[in-house]
Amino acid sequence: MEAADIPYRDRAREEGNNALSRHLEGMKQPAFAVPLLEGHGVTVAQTANILLYLGEKHALAPQSLSGRLWVHQLQLTIADVVTEAHNVHHPIGASLYYEDQKDVAKQAAKGFREERIPAFLDYFERSAGNSGWLVGDAWTYADTSLFQLVEGLRYAFPERMKALAKDYPKVAALAERVAEMPQLTDYLASERRLAFNEQGIFRHYPELDGP
Amino acid sequence: MEAADIPYRDRAREEGNNALSRHLEGMKQPAFAVPLLEGHGVTVAQTANILLYLGEKHALAPQSLSGRLWVHQLQLTIADVVTEAHNVHHPIGASLYYEDQKDVAKQAAKGFREERIPAFLDYFERSAGNSGWLVGDAWTYADTSLFQLVEGLRYAFPERMKALAKDYPKVAALAERVAEMPQLTDYLASERRLAFNEQGIFRHYPELDGP
Repeated sequence: MEAADIPYRDRAREEGNNALSRHLEGMKQPAFAVPLLEGHGVTVAQTANILLYLGEKHALAPQSLSGRLWVHQLQLTIADVVTEAHNVHHPIGASLYYEDQKDVAKQAAKGFREERIPAFLDYFERSAGNSGWLVGDAWTYADTSLFQLVEGLRYAFPERMKALAKDYPKVAALAERVAEMPQLTDYLASERRLAFNEQGIFRHYPELDGP
Repeated sequence: MEAADIPYRDRAREEGNNALSRHLEGMKQPAFAVPLLEGHGVTVAQTANILLYLGEKHALAPQSLSGRLWVHQLQLTIADVVTEAHNVHHPIGASLYYEDQKDVAKQAAKGFREERIPAFLDYFERSAGNSGWLVGDAWTYADTSLFQLVEGLRYAFPERMKALAKDYPKVAALAERVAEMPQLTDYLASERRLAFNEQGIFRHYPELDGP
């Protein structure tokens, strides 16, 4: 929304978790979890679904059926990597602390670093167009998502991402291009942009990283 | 597609894995993995995206924006459960055999059985309409997906699902209603319907089940 200059309010941060919980409980079409976007008569949950909606409503993706589906396919694949990145530090389950599954997390991290990160980056490298964006000649919501994924992986696995940097020039260039979008300059330097941290999806635990 | 009488060919089964691999490598808009739907000038990967497409093209979901998004949101949440169900038997990673992560799988299964299955079934129970279908007064693709999820969970965790059966009457009734759709009678009794098995997503390992 920042990249597309769409005004919004982050009500979860403004009003707190209790208000959010009450709101979630009262929904007619419930959301299993946040994020949740409401406004203009629609209520949308699931990140990829929110982006699908914004893509249609604000032209942040091609309008043709095949173009919309292709951007959404890339988004859903990005979502798959995000899920796997989370599972690395919580392989047994999200209800246990990281400290209680640290040894298993080390094993999970090995496979993720050595096989999954290259497989997914290779996929996005093959998928990227020659325009410098993923799809067509213009920014789409999948570009910002890929940027966020790359940033998250660099935060969580700095050694591994450094070792792989040369293998994915298009992905690296695209992430840099998003970071330099004029629409994002203010946002990326502001407190609205949450810094990566060890309560989030992408966590930097040095014991899970490696070249 | 069977439920909507849409003719299709299962080329992966007809032509085998080698032909499929060659096909995947040559794609201009690549798919990270199967399933993949091709035809009428479009190529779509990611299960939820395929259903989004079929939903629009063949009216297997409401045509309004809010209706399409709601069905897709349910579908994406079903996809989340499916991913978690797979992670239960492969918590460390998909590249290791189950036998090599069996002890960790037992720990993962406990949390999935006790917390995640009830949380998700509760969500679908709250989401289901009073019509006997998830959305509106007619079958949508999310209903068949929920049916497949319930069947898969019953196959993988029969004891747990038996213990929970009374808590989710709407979900149970919906799964039964899908199973009895006249359009599905032939399919469900045919070899086109792959039986659940221990190479799939939903696997019955008795050591991972429990009341």
